[in-house]
Amino acid sequence: MKEQLADYIQNKITVSAEELEIVLSYFKQLKLKKNELLLLQGQISQQTFFVCTGCLRIYFNTESGQEATRYFAFENQFATALVSFITSEASEEFIQAVETSEILYISHSDFHFLLETIPAWEKFYRLYLEKAYVNNTNRLMSFLTQDAAEKYKQLLAENPDIVKRLPNKLVASYLNISQETLSRLKSKI
Amino acid sequence: MKEQLADYIQNKITVSAEELEIVLSYFKQLKLKKNELLLLQGQISQQTFFVCTGCLRIYFNTESGQEATRYFAFENQFATALVSFITSEASEEFIQAVETSEILYISHSDFHFLLETIPAWEKFYRLYLEKAYVNNTNRLMSFLTQDAAEKYKQLLAENPDIVKRLPNKLVASYLNISQETLSRLKSKI
Repeated sequence: MKEQLADYIQNKITVSAEELEIVLSYFKQLKLKKNELLLLQGQISQQTFFVCTGCLRIYFNTESGQEATRYFAFENQFATALVSFITSEASEEFIQAVETSEILYISHSDFHFLLETIPAWEKFYRLYLEKAYVNNTNRLMSFLTQDAAEKYKQLLAENPDIVKRLPNKLVASYLNISQETLSRLKSKI
Repeated sequence: MKEQLADYIQNKITVSAEELEIVLSYFKQLKLKKNELLLLQGQISQQTFFVCTGCLRIYFNTESGQEATRYFAFENQFATALVSFITSEASEEFIQAVETSEILYISHSDFHFLLETIPAWEKFYRLYLEKAYVNNTNRLMSFLTQDAAEKYKQLLAENPDIVKRLPNKLVASYLNISQETLSRLKSKI
């Protein structure tokens, strides 16, 4: 599992073998059952997670009481409730394993220790934040600027795995539409 | 104007006098008329802006064709259409001066030149991205998770200047509600 993370890191930044070993030493392994919750709304997000196998879901409750999914992290993706991880305030978001998953995680304090001691880790985190900003803004903007059909077409074009791999209930929560609307779109498009 | 920016930077990071002078040398001044547009939807965001006096507004068009304001940057705040600044793709957002404003700006290429040459600038940008991520996520989540009264109460608690300083039309666009709903809330709360 750690080789998978090592490959991911080396794809993003240039680090010496020694620095890489230090970074990897701060990650711990965890096995998760399907539907297991890693973080509840109201808790403080004190880890960030790297998915080796399986899938994590980050979601929140909308004004109308529906679950809206902000992000699915599949293999070789990082995920956390990032606002809470940055601010150390209570999270608006839940984190859940939606498949049996094997993950690596690092604590907030170890992550910040690496920022202080490994200069390239500052760049790693910058690239992480840039990607998170773009993903998150595009996701939330799509809820506000696109209708159901536009959202579904964009998902098929950019992220077809979500439609193929996950149950309709989760796909609908990702599009912030009802399951009935999703079924109608699937039969039409 | 450059002293104002120098103070802002020194509040965030530790830089030598020489490094600070290099950083400041890449910023240029601009005066803006009220309502002047700095960026249109569809253009690529190639600068980031620091407000010395006045106010910039970042906004986008919602599914129903209304303008929704994502951010007001007053004095001593940075602002840009950040997704486009990161990706160099067309912006979903507009940038507009909503008051007569004096600003400083730096180009995307000069900003990235500083990331390569001034190590502390990497940390400056990291703090910038963290703040932007938190602000932006909280703003867009509030559109999706709070009703009009909740949004208005939170605005009064966290950012009363927006209500005091700006016209109702802009305040309503910031809350993503109609001007009529805003008037009703103002008379009740």
